[in-house]
Amino acid sequence: MGSLGHMVRWEPGARARLQLAATSLFLTRGFEATTVQDIAREAGLTERTFFRHFTDKREVLFVGQQEYEAHFLRGVREAPEGLSSFALASAAIAAAADFFPAERRPWSRQRQAVIDANPALQERELLKRAALGAALTEELRAHGVPAPDAPLAAETGVTVFHVAFRLWIAEEEDRSLLEIEQEVLGRLSAIVPGADRA
Amino acid sequence: MGSLGHMVRWEPGARARLQLAATSLFLTRGFEATTVQDIAREAGLTERTFFRHFTDKREVLFVGQQEYEAHFLRGVREAPEGLSSFALASAAIAAAADFFPAERRPWSRQRQAVIDANPALQERELLKRAALGAALTEELRAHGVPAPDAPLAAETGVTVFHVAFRLWIAEEEDRSLLEIEQEVLGRLSAIVPGADRA
Repeated sequence: MGSLGHMVRWEPGARARLQLAATSLFLTRGFEATTVQDIAREAGLTERTFFRHFTDKREVLFVGQQEYEAHFLRGVREAPEGLSSFALASAAIAAAADFFPAERRPWSRQRQAVIDANPALQERELLKRAALGAALTEELRAHGVPAPDAPLAAETGVTVFHVAFRLWIAEEEDRSLLEIEQEVLGRLSAIVPGADRA
Repeated sequence: MGSLGHMVRWEPGARARLQLAATSLFLTRGFEATTVQDIAREAGLTERTFFRHFTDKREVLFVGQQEYEAHFLRGVREAPEGLSSFALASAAIAAAADFFPAERRPWSRQRQAVIDANPALQERELLKRAALGAALTEELRAHGVPAPDAPLAAETGVTVFHVAFRLWIAEEEDRSLLEIEQEVLGRLSAIVPGADRA
């Protein structure tokens, strides 16, 4: 490395390049059969660069969990005063839609295809979803929502988000995630009996 | 063992005794620190008897998963014709309440306390919950419920069930699980905006 060996070279877009190379290899060779060396080579980068961005190959798919959760929680924190429990949960998933702009959709599709093909990754994804439900429940409680409305609104909101997300990454779908969330919220309102009939 | 060595001795109530002994030890010593030998000794039975009922100590807490899921699915299968997606999901959780009669509540409380104290067991429990949501979604689809209503109704039903279950095992709670489910369904109806306002 010579006299520049102590410097950390900045690779523009290295993280995104590594992520795209990784999912492409995971889809063609399988997650288990792909090595970090394969990923770095495919991206035209070194393994050292890989490990500056990710601790291991699984993290390529799950990095950014905190940022992801933070979007939901920010939606609750920035909501106007006096919203109902369910309106707070809806604000959370509307804010989360900002985390998934149209240009992220191809990556999200590839990532989901990798996860759907691997039971261990599916487990990791389910735990991520459960962690989100728990964090959102806590945030609603912190906003004064009483039990059992807090877990009920939070978990139902997370369900709406995941149903909408699956539709958003479907082939040929081109509406925004926010638009699809609104549609799914409408379906929820349509199927849950009204308070007068409960 | 002499001439009776080939016979499998039937221990009346052995499974329940082993389960109670195990959770009691898990709560006092911790799950990790408890061995199968400890459990068998505490129950006054042999390790051989233990392994006739369970493959390992974790299974003491998770045995019966298929029977548990089957209760939910039976609720859908035995529902009258023409019910809405959400009424089918409600029928599923009402049928599941049969699996948790009052005499099971002390065990359910102890089991939950063990799980709440151990992250690895919590993960296992979350995966069980996710498997239930997926199975119920499939069952609704098989009943002609279209997407996205099938996952929406199934997952929301599972949320109602788990919120109700937590209330059912709370200290001093003595209402039936079915009664609490009805209350939580009422809360859901109260917090989700009606179709006219969606």
